[in-house]
Order: sequence, then structure tokens, then C-alpha cells
Amino acid sequence: MEKLSIVKIGGNIIEDETSLKAFLKLFSNLEGKKILVHGGGKRATLVASKLGIASKMINGRRITDAETLEVITMVYGGLVNKNIVAKLQALNTNAIGLTGADINSIVSDKRPVKEIDFGFVGDVKQVAHESIDKLIQADFTPVFCAITHDGNGQLLNTNADTITSQVAVGMSHLYETSIYYCFELNGVLEDINDKNSVVKHINSKTYSELLEKGIIADGMLPKLENCFDALNNGVSTINMGNTSMLTQENDNFTTITL
Amino acid sequence: MEKLSIVKIGGNIIEDETSLKAFLKLFSNLEGKKILVHGGGKRATLVASKLGIASKMINGRRITDAETLEVITMVYGGLVNKNIVAKLQALNTNAIGLTGADINSIVSDKRPVKEIDFGFVGDVKQVAHESIDKLIQADFTPVFCAITHDGNGQLLNTNADTITSQVAVGMSHLYETSIYYCFELNGVLEDINDKNSVVKHINSKTYSELLEKGIIADGMLPKLENCFDALNNGVSTINMGNTSMLTQENDNFTTITL
Repeated sequence: MEKLSIVKIGGNIIEDETSLKAFLKLFSNLEGKKILVHGGGKRATLVASKLGIASKMINGRRITDAETLEVITMVYGGLVNKNIVAKLQALNTNAIGLTGADINSIVSDKRPVKEIDFGFVGDVKQVAHESIDKLIQADFTPVFCAITHDGNGQLLNTNADTITSQVAVGMSHLYETSIYYCFELNGVLEDINDKNSVVKHINSKTYSELLEKGIIADGMLPKLENCFDALNNGVSTINMGNTSMLTQENDNFTTITL
Repeated sequence: MEKLSIVKIGGNIIEDETSLKAFLKLFSNLEGKKILVHGGGKRATLVASKLGIASKMINGRRITDAETLEVITMVYGGLVNKNIVAKLQALNTNAIGLTGADINSIVSDKRPVKEIDFGFVGDVKQVAHESIDKLIQADFTPVFCAITHDGNGQLLNTNADTITSQVAVGMSHLYETSIYYCFELNGVLEDINDKNSVVKHINSKTYSELLEKGIIADGMLPKLENCFDALNNGVSTINMGNTSMLTQENDNFTTITL
């Protein structure tokens, strides 16, 4: 099967013009078929605040009421996504910016209200891998922002990590898929205070050991659970580290396989 | 040659939720291959004003400084475009929202500074009709907002009527193209005070007569010039009227041919 890379970047790269530019160059140089997924949280908070809309967070998760969804649609779907697309075009990457509503690519269910009403937040239900592949086969590079839809006209704010893993799982029907989660750390760290103590390889067996030792905890725990979920559903390899893992020169990042 | 319809809607339809819903139903029911182009001016003005950015207009044209371009990218490319796409999906039209940066579809030159500096405004230079056709051939329905790019990473605010005619001219290499300009009038009017005095057909010959009689003047003049320019460059038919011209039931609109 042909290879496909799915790269996810977070707010820290998007916020900083220099980091974004450097990253987009690395992404453009990445060989083979590829997909980019981006968040954009801080910028949305900033625009919301300028518009006099208070950002409501519970346990680090944004509560998306109707006016917050409008801001997210403007910032993720418009400002961030279209500027990334224009910058990629300047680097000769034939990008196409998408939400999950475009070509019906990602359908979600609005999260059911339990203890917390998260508002217009989506849990991914279905990825139209064949439609996404039509774009890839046409030599376009999909750039997804963190918005999906319910198929009935409602856009939904959706976690970018989840979009990444679900799109990767979907595309695994057609490609040998690798995920690259770019974040501020060099990878999963043996010692959280030593940024160079990267655990280079994790598999199902060593994962259990890392869990027992308490090395994977807190915010890393749901990320890793999400990773193994994707691997169990067809994704070949998942890499976590800073953006330089996209080059051949850096091998100091974490690779996760089954 | 196969037929392709390019439909343009303006701010008056987008602003009003009921009008937009009714229009999108008509557009979805329109048979054959099609493209939608939308503006969104008033909404941008509203968001800009909420953000404390004054809208600068000279002779009815928006001056697009850097922060105004950000608002336009948020509102046209995000809020308006993605909501239209989600609503079309709910009507089983497999829409894909685009700026001219996406798939490098529309490249513009930043308008040169003469008496007036329009700022980040683009004059269309090139339409990638073959790339756009890849989407159409994949059974996707392109939905363009009024933003293009310069190919060097810069997004540019671009007149939606111009985008419509230039995309139509480009697609005329591959299709028999018809434009539908939906606006608040029933068509070109013989008597501006009688909304039913529609001039049903205009061609090059009758156009000269209408000009002499002063029936085509003011805001209608550049619109019609733009139409004949498109017709001279390959577009087959241009229709102007209210949205009901998209149905078979209404024949009270203006059709323009060479």
C-alpha cells in the first residue's frame, strides 16, 4: 500500500508567525501524499475576547455556545485555515482547506449533555475516506481545521487530535498511514524535567510498563490512549515530537506502534 | 459540450436566514453541474465594527487594510462559506467551500496604487479551470467566497461579480457555461420605478439601444459591461434576476447573450 502522512500542529505553532513559516516549509518538503490538521485555540480566545465573548472552559475544554461556535468558524475555518493554505501554495504545495462539512468529509454527533453541556461540540462518527482520497488522487493536499458537521446543517467544534486520528483510521483503508503529532515537547519524556529524556519507541508491551512506572500520566494519558486506539484500528505508526521530526536529521522523538 | 451553471448571490440573500435557506434549496434542486459564488459584505462590516475596526469605503468600494482583510477572511472564508457548505450538505449537495488560494484556483494581482490605495484587493489574473474541474468531475459542488490570493502567500479581497465572470470564462474551455446573477431586482428594468418592467432579452445590438435610451446607467452599467466581457470570452448565457429564476416557473428575468 502507498504511504500517507497525517501531520497535526497545535496552537503554539500557529500563534507564532516564524514557527508557522518554518513548519510549513518542513511540511511542504515532506515527501509523498499527506494531510495537515490544525487547531487554533488561542487565536479564537483572542478574537472572542475582542468581540466581548467570554471563553468558557471546564477542565481545559472549551464550552461552545452559539456565539463561540461563530468565532471558531471564523478563526479556524477562515483566518487560520485560509492563511495556511495561501502560505502552502506559495511553497508549491497544492493545498485545499477543509472543515468536516466540505465534501461531507467528517460527520460528528453533537456530544450528548450529561453533567456538562459542552454545547456545539462534535464526536466524530464517520470519515468519508473515499471522498478525501478523490482530493489526494487529484494531487491536492487536504488541510483540515478542527470543525466537523452533523450532516443536518450544524457545524460542530471538534478536537483536532481526534480529527487527526479518525481521519488516519479512515485513510488506513486505502493507505499505510503514519501520524505525526507535532507539539512543544521532543516526545514522550522519561523524566518530565529533562526535555531530552525521550522514550524513542513505545509498543503495547512497553506502554503497560510506562503506565506502571507512572511515566505516562496526566495530559499524556488520553493522548496515548487515543494513539493505541488509532493503531488498533489500522494506523501503522504514530510519531510524537517537535516539528523537526519531519526531517531526516532528527531521530529524537517518540514512535508508537502496536 | 456539457452544461455548467455558475450562480452568484449577494449580501441581501446571505444576511437573511429565511432567504438563504430558500435560495439554497433552489440551488440544490438546480439540475446539472454547478458552482456557487457568494459575497458577504454587510456581515463583515458588522463583525469589523464589533472588533472596533472602522469600515473604510471610497465610491462604494471597501478599502482593505490588513485588519480588514483578517475580518474578511474570517467572515467570507469561515463564517459565511462554511455555514453555506454545511447547509448544502444537509440538502444532499456535496459542497466544497473555496477561496482562490485553495487548489490555487484563482490567482490575482494586488491592485496597483493610483489615486486610491485599495489595500489588499485583488484583480483576477488566472483561473485554474482544470483544477476546478477535478472537483466537479469528482461530483463536488464548488462554493467560492470573494477571496483570492497572489500565489506568494497573500490573500486578497476580490469582487464576487468578477470572480463569478472570471470563473465562468475559465470553465468555458470545458463546458457550455451560464451565469445566474441573483440580486434584489427582477432583472434589468425598462423603468426603474416599475419592478415588473423587465427587459427579458439583451444582446449586443439591443444593448447599444438600451445604452442610448439611458435605460442602462449607474450601477447597472459596469455590471452589463462585465457581462459582455464574459460573453465575448466564451460564456454562453448570462441571466440576471431574483433567485426564482433558478426555477422553471419564473421566466420574468433578463437573459443576456451576444
